[in-house]
Amino acid sequence: MEQFSVAFFEENFKTYAEQNEDVFSKQQAMNSYYVSMVSTIINDNINKNSELVKRIRNLNAAYQNCRS
Amino acid sequence: MEQFSVAFFEENFKTYAEQNEDVFSKQQAMNSYYVSMVSTIINDNINKNSELVKRIRNLNAAYQNCRS
Repeated sequence: MEQFSVAFFEENFKTYAEQNEDVFSKQQAMNSYYVSMVSTIINDNINKNSELVKRIRNLNAAYQNCRS
Repeated sequence: MEQFSVAFFEENFKTYAEQNEDVFSKQQAMNSYYVSMVSTIINDNINKNSELVKRIRNLNAAYQNCRS
């Protein structure tokens, strides 16, 4: 699966929510994963801004897809 | 205060956490605000990618500053 793709983030949202279901609600776990991923993405100084924005848009799309 | 500056986001994090302290922990409220702001920023098709990345970096800096 391509890193930073929508499917990649969807899988990670699901895994992270499952791993933390004893401690956090699905919503809380997803928000926490979202924040840490954005933080990681924007600290990548190697990639171009267009690539950073694309990755964050994919993360956000996956978030919307997994929320329901 | 300049919109999308670090100080602007710091103020909003504080306000949002205070307004929701009956329902959410500070951490939860901040994560929720963070997610909704990133979503808003990246859906702005008027601005250049460099400006979008700058805004998200400011949001993230404010988040780190307000977390403690």
